[in-house]
Amino acid sequence: MIITLEKQCTTDQRAAIEAVARGAKLEVHPIIGVNETVLGLVGDFNGRYGDMFDHFQAMPGVASIQKISKPYKLAGRDMHPADTIVEVGGVKIGDGSLTHIAGPCAVESEVQIRSIALLVHDAGANVFRGGAFKPRTSPYSFSGLKEDGLRMLRDAGGEVGMPVVTEVMDTRDVPVVSRYADILQVGARNMKNFSLLQEVGQTGMPVMLKRGADATIEDLLMSAEHVLSRRRDREPRLILCERGVIGFDDETRNLTDMSAIPVLHRITHLPVVLDPSHATGVREYVGPMALAGVAAGADGIHIEVHNKPEEALCDGKQSLLPDQYAELIERMAAVHRAVRGVYPRG
Amino acid sequence: MIITLEKQCTTDQRAAIEAVARGAKLEVHPIIGVNETVLGLVGDFNGRYGDMFDHFQAMPGVASIQKISKPYKLAGRDMHPADTIVEVGGVKIGDGSLTHIAGPCAVESEVQIRSIALLVHDAGANVFRGGAFKPRTSPYSFSGLKEDGLRMLRDAGGEVGMPVVTEVMDTRDVPVVSRYADILQVGARNMKNFSLLQEVGQTGMPVMLKRGADATIEDLLMSAEHVLSRRRDREPRLILCERGVIGFDDETRNLTDMSAIPVLHRITHLPVVLDPSHATGVREYVGPMALAGVAAGADGIHIEVHNKPEEALCDGKQSLLPDQYAELIERMAAVHRAVRGVYPRG
Amino acid sequence: MIITLEKQCTTDQRAAIEAVARGAKLEVHPIIGVNETVLGLVGDFNGRYGDMFDHFQAMPGVASIQKISKPYKLAGRDMHPADTIVEVGGVKIGDGSLTHIAGPCAVESEVQIRSIALLVHDAGANVFRGGAFKPRTSPYSFSGLKEDGLRMLRDAGGEVGMPVVTEVMDTRDVPVVSRYADILQVGARNMKNFSLLQEVGQTGMPVMLKRGADATIEDLLMSAEHVLSRRRDREPRLILCERGVIGFDDETRNLTDMSAIPVLHRITHLPVVLDPSHATGVREYVGPMALAGVAAGADGIHIEVHNKPEEALCDGKQSLLPDQYAELIERMAAVHRAVRGVYPRG
Amino acid sequence: MIITLEKQCTTDQRAAIEAVARGAKLEVHPIIGVNETVLGLVGDFNGRYGDMFDHFQAMPGVASIQKISKPYKLAGRDMHPADTIVEVGGVKIGDGSLTHIAGPCAVESEVQIRSIALLVHDAGANVFRGGAFKPRTSPYSFSGLKEDGLRMLRDAGGEVGMPVVTEVMDTRDVPVVSRYADILQVGARNMKNFSLLQEVGQTGMPVMLKRGADATIEDLLMSAEHVLSRRRDREPRLILCERGVIGFDDETRNLTDMSAIPVLHRITHLPVVLDPSHATGVREYVGPMALAGVAAGADGIHIEVHNKPEEALCDGKQSLLPDQYAELIERMAAVHRAVRGVYPRG
Repeated sequence: MIITLEKQCTTDQRAAIEAVARGAKLEVHPIIGVNETVLGLVGDFNGRYGDMFDHFQAMPGVASIQKISKPYKLAGRDMHPADTIVEVGGVKIGDGSLTHIAGPCAVESEVQIRSIALLVHDAGANVFRGGAFKPRTSPYSFSGLKEDGLRMLRDAGGEVGMPVVTEVMDTRDVPVVSRYADILQVGARNMKNFSLLQEVGQTGMPVMLKRGADATIEDLLMSAEHVLSRRRDREPRLILCERGVIGFDDETRNLTDMSAIPVLHRITHLPVVLDPSHATGVREYVGPMALAGVAAGADGIHIEVHNKPEEALCDGKQSLLPDQYAELIERMAAVHRAVRGVYPRG
Repeated sequence: MIITLEKQCTTDQRAAIEAVARGAKLEVHPIIGVNETVLGLVGDFNGRYGDMFDHFQAMPGVASIQKISKPYKLAGRDMHPADTIVEVGGVKIGDGSLTHIAGPCAVESEVQIRSIALLVHDAGANVFRGGAFKPRTSPYSFSGLKEDGLRMLRDAGGEVGMPVVTEVMDTRDVPVVSRYADILQVGARNMKNFSLLQEVGQTGMPVMLKRGADATIEDLLMSAEHVLSRRRDREPRLILCERGVIGFDDETRNLTDMSAIPVLHRITHLPVVLDPSHATGVREYVGPMALAGVAAGADGIHIEVHNKPEEALCDGKQSLLPDQYAELIERMAAVHRAVRGVYPRG
Repeated sequence: MIITLEKQCTTDQRAAIEAVARGAKLEVHPIIGVNETVLGLVGDFNGRYGDMFDHFQAMPGVASIQKISKPYKLAGRDMHPADTIVEVGGVKIGDGSLTHIAGPCAVESEVQIRSIALLVHDAGANVFRGGAFKPRTSPYSFSGLKEDGLRMLRDAGGEVGMPVVTEVMDTRDVPVVSRYADILQVGARNMKNFSLLQEVGQTGMPVMLKRGADATIEDLLMSAEHVLSRRRDREPRLILCERGVIGFDDETRNLTDMSAIPVLHRITHLPVVLDPSHATGVREYVGPMALAGVAAGADGIHIEVHNKPEEALCDGKQSLLPDQYAELIERMAAVHRAVRGVYPRG
Repeated sequence: MIITLEKQCTTDQRAAIEAVARGAKLEVHPIIGVNETVLGLVGDFNGRYGDMFDHFQAMPGVASIQKISKPYKLAGRDMHPADTIVEVGGVKIGDGSLTHIAGPCAVESEVQIRSIALLVHDAGANVFRGGAFKPRTSPYSFSGLKEDGLRMLRDAGGEVGMPVVTEVMDTRDVPVVSRYADILQVGARNMKNFSLLQEVGQTGMPVMLKRGADATIEDLLMSAEHVLSRRRDREPRLILCERGVIGFDDETRNLTDMSAIPVLHRITHLPVVLDPSHATGVREYVGPMALAGVAAGADGIHIEVHNKPEEALCDGKQSLLPDQYAELIERMAAVHRAVRGVYPRG
């Protein structure tokens, strides 16, 4: 932590700052520059890095503080250099293979979910998705079949032997969703819902955490830290998912942050999945972005697939048809082969 | 709703689109332009505007859709032209007066919260704030005193006769927070936590909803709609709070969207409060932004005040000292007088 | 053009609006909705779409206007459906092959530019780049060798038989840069410097137009329109280049808008190049983003290469070493083969 | 400058970094932390701060660099603590008074510009504006009357005794615009057109520099530095103008960055003007934002005024009527009185 003092910082103010640092058993290294004086603080912050940062920021005489250490620990590579592989239902996510997560936006009926499960399984998907609790911008929109939907999803996945991932939105629903799902999804809108993060963390189950539209990479990893810090078994069974950040152009729903994939791979050991369906919101762009994600090193691609998009109760505009998905999987495989060895993993 | 057809839209595709519209009892008005054909859809969408929008978007032959009607109803001025005044504990928010909400980031101790309550009350505040459940980026940071904090807050507010507002983060905590608080706050990070919005809506209590950093004005009003649609008494006891959106410059924590104040006043009847403390994150800028907010027509200003900012457990950097706050209130009053009559209200 | 009237629009105001429309020989189709009245305007706007839009927006009684037609013509696919192939010095850009543009940020010396030209040529590049007029944030930084640099660049490119592209920043420099360059580059900072766009347009030379960090896709195409509308020969010898937009995360210099590639390919006939060097600003991420760009369908990849990045006078941090570039080209070729036929072109 | 070394930084790499620093006559202060090693570099960078930063960033072994010193000098308060007052034609900008800059978007005709000059002068404006060279998104839109427009503007301003400000877009037009204008305006789209900045700097004339929509505060001050560094007389006759940055919400044209006013006042001595017309793009919001700007401490307010907005050749939607402007000026004066003494200046 590097504290830059204000030009008009008094001797007393500086002494107070140094006293706080020494009280926390940190060494203080002053550097007197031509225009500025900085204090380098060194030592073990004992998980109080954020608190100390806030404390110093509020002290008189402090102009600004630069962080040197990262505020996350369990999510970072410093303490956990090896790549994490999340195993669920026989599928390994993050081992260098390409995981295909697919399914409809929402579970709508038994017939619908079973037929799509068969189709995406045949196409080559290995994790099945479908929403039973749906976050909807409008309170008047279809918001999911709840426990009935969970049961249908579970059964449909079970029939074709695919583990299922589904979103949980409310701490109170964590138990029921945990009974049916193999992976708990925390959606982008709840990425900073810390109560929910901690609750899903405590289950010990695999979690897929989607990046919020306004979340920096550090924000995402701090949310991951909330999940990981609640694991009793210390197993970091957590998958990160990029699904687009807020942008200023209406051509796509969100702005796909493709470089998040290599950035995350450098600083975290957790697997990284791309969701081009929500990132773009437009069917025509899902394929190109999926292929780009594979080329950029994603560990998996998450795609919305519906057999009757125009009858879908949500997100029809961005859903691929099963045929389109099957073709895309072949192309993704070709691109994955083309970049073999570029991204060592697993 | 205006549907623009793709150039290569077939007769069958167009017939299918028109059939869906007519099935929903909407009139179809085609307009054949030089380059494009559009269909104007007219009628009563019966709260299914969002669903219909999604449905049409997913149909083959549709190039794009322009919304004409707004997707919110209870939050908008169309159905509720008169300004809403939220009364709580003798304070009227939105009646043309200037409401002063103030207090520390977090309730830290009985001594701390009582002394700050006295100070801000003396300075002229009329609603007291303090966090007992704190959303913290880091899982290792102080996250509030929970029910003990609620009790201290309630008692401190009671002593000086100020209603209290405090954040609730988890649907499971709504009952306990409701017992102590006069106004339930939904924080920016939970603005799209629809479960929480509905839960606080059902209590019938006054709610202060803070705008998320990535939320458009429409997003904010849709979240308001989630709250309002759960009110059995139909009383729109909801206050909106602007606290900065995501920006690209590190000089301030967020980018204060000052124009949100007049924009909201034009399209919603709900009172609008500005929180310059969280919006800027820097003590020096809180005053200028508070004054600007009053000049722009805000119904209230929400300020973090701490008597020992450098010992605060959170947000010390942005907290005003009680003296600074007292001075600022006088200035705000002067500016409020200077704009009297510019913003008719109440 | 769809004009939504204000609820309180008077009969006279509406009559005035309709009169203006009819005066411009546009047909007026009114649609009376439950809550709103809209006027659909149909006819030939004769290039005055933007002006008419502005005019109507300023008229009393108008609530908002939706554009249906696109404001660009020469840059769009409506009037020019076939893909444009830009030929320069034997290289075809946009014909389905992958163009490799490479070279240092700046021309620094004859030795430097010649050795890099040899290295990137050997690696497989087919267009050579290097800056002689450099836009620099600081007035105290190296700003290029000017005409000497142009001569060195031209000679170095000529020796290995590569056409050269270089930036022009000032209308007054267009003649001198045109004498040495094969392609004139307009940089991101000058994307809305309309004088410069028109000046390079008038030369008739091939132009590479980089997207500004705050430019929407429509903004970019409107700037392209400025160039194209000045061509006497009507040949759209213009290449678009995505190089990242403004974002809110410091992990990378800009936010690579990867989906701009398929979006642009859908709405414009012009070739699209990706510049992952400026988009990311970090050497480690250039490779993954280059591969992603190829997978997303880019017509070319623009990479900064320097043989001694730590001695580079600019952008060393994002420059690849020649060896890294040679390896990357092989990988890009493999990905390009893997997506063959996905993006029909040429 | 604080350099954080990579964990795997070798002894040789570190030695090379230190050698470069010492070669530049900088002292090196290493601080060995628990997880990281940083090198504090101290000394006189002699205007080469930016270059050194780039150089170190490109060196192997460097993880990241934190700037401590600011890269601007002439624009900052360190070397120039006293507030700058720009005097032009008897008007003092930045002396604590409130400057009123007003006029139409474009000079359209002699009759138009003279009548508006009279009206805004009567309303209380003291600087007259009007565009003769207009940057237009579309090449088919009206782009100004050029020198004829300059003459009309000059004459109209002269008649009522107001100095005039007008935009120059092309380095080649600087001489002609300088002959007619009292203040040269560099528009937001050209804020990073460094050739233009240097050219207007060399004239020695007062300049008004508008902030680009994607410019950080530091970017703006670096562009100011380009102007100031070309002044032979060292007189910093430069006015900064906030006119909105890029946002994600369509309710307003840009996102008014109100906090830029106090931020700039803290770090630069140059006067700061707000332009709520371009910032919001909507007539109804111009007044509230103008009042907010005054309350936030702006040295001047720049407003577009037109007597027949619906016939304006540009920006009619955001132009105030003369009556509205006259009323607004009275309100601004009242707010200015209400904040007297809050912002010491001049």
